[in-house]
Amino acid sequence: MNKRLEQQIFFILEIDKLKNIFRRTFLLDESRLENTAEHSWHAAVAVLLLAEYAPRSLDLLRLVKMMLIHDIVEIDAGDTFLYDDSGNQDKAERERAAADRLFTLLPQDQAAALRTLWDEFEKRSTPEAKFARGLDRLLPLMHNYYTKGSTWRKHNVTSDMVLKQNAIIADASPELWEFARTLIQNAVDKRYLIG
Amino acid sequence: MNKRLEQQIFFILEIDKLKNIFRRTFLLDESRLENTAEHSWHAAVAVLLLAEYAPRSLDLLRLVKMMLIHDIVEIDAGDTFLYDDSGNQDKAERERAAADRLFTLLPQDQAAALRTLWDEFEKRSTPEAKFARGLDRLLPLMHNYYTKGSTWRKHNVTSDMVLKQNAIIADASPELWEFARTLIQNAVDKRYLIG
Repeated sequence: MNKRLEQQIFFILEIDKLKNIFRRTFLLDESRLENTAEHSWHAAVAVLLLAEYAPRSLDLLRLVKMMLIHDIVEIDAGDTFLYDDSGNQDKAERERAAADRLFTLLPQDQAAALRTLWDEFEKRSTPEAKFARGLDRLLPLMHNYYTKGSTWRKHNVTSDMVLKQNAIIADASPELWEFARTLIQNAVDKRYLIG
Repeated sequence: MNKRLEQQIFFILEIDKLKNIFRRTFLLDESRLENTAEHSWHAAVAVLLLAEYAPRSLDLLRLVKMMLIHDIVEIDAGDTFLYDDSGNQDKAERERAAADRLFTLLPQDQAAALRTLWDEFEKRSTPEAKFARGLDRLLPLMHNYYTKGSTWRKHNVTSDMVLKQNAIIADASPELWEFARTLIQNAVDKRYLIG
């Protein structure tokens, strides 16, 4: 096998580990926590279906690639809960080290391309990254709402915390932010979330 | 919420069920069976990285969309094991009924677009579909090989069966088929697979 294909196959085998990284979000049937690989699939489908709500036309291939690889760093860095202040202090550093190791398993051109996409996502530096980051917040918000606040109640999350952490959805799409705000208000009204 | 967004959100919630459809393939660490949502993610990343081995240039956005939605029908139809002859007799019919229900949850234009992609995938009627179908075979073959034939041994699968069912990888890419054949031969040599 040539060296290039060997590196690609090794990377594909390595990222299987993402299926064993578990998030704080429950599946909608509340049977178990969601893992990061299946979240990445769900988010990739969601951005394709909802890209029309972005304020400007997006490069869909760039967007979907970004969504597919946005959490691969969690193989080394683990999932950091959005409302975990101490975990979030060194998150960027842990994830950067993970990106350094993981993407460079690939041939140089592919490593550079994926690293660029991941950096964009982290910095929200392009319209695609803004949209991807917003959707990456909207999905767990939906999961929380439709499981009657399962994760919020477990971790004593308040509506102020949710509003603050999800405000970047507005940069993805004003229309989707309006939808998110309605969910948050309804969650308070239904006592899924501390008002 | 407008009707269009409501349909899109409902579809996104509905496909969460794919995370609870389990395949016969084990994760590489053999800790559990793989579910179809995380398989779809893995396959989408794999086609993007390996598309350069297709005999002609592919429409990558079309290809990755196809890979993301290729197994959504399993929400209703379940996963059918490649080597289950009786299950494969009514597979097409069960999956068609599932496609009729699931894709039409979306607004008409998106429903039609996804249905077209799914039909292409099923019929292997375009270069993108041929590549996607080949990779959809190559990934479980890799999982089987690198878990020392876990699923093959459990179900008494022989190398003839594997060669026959995986021959469509040659239409995806002669180079990837050569890799697959090497894995199959090595699997026989190492007794992961009945020769």
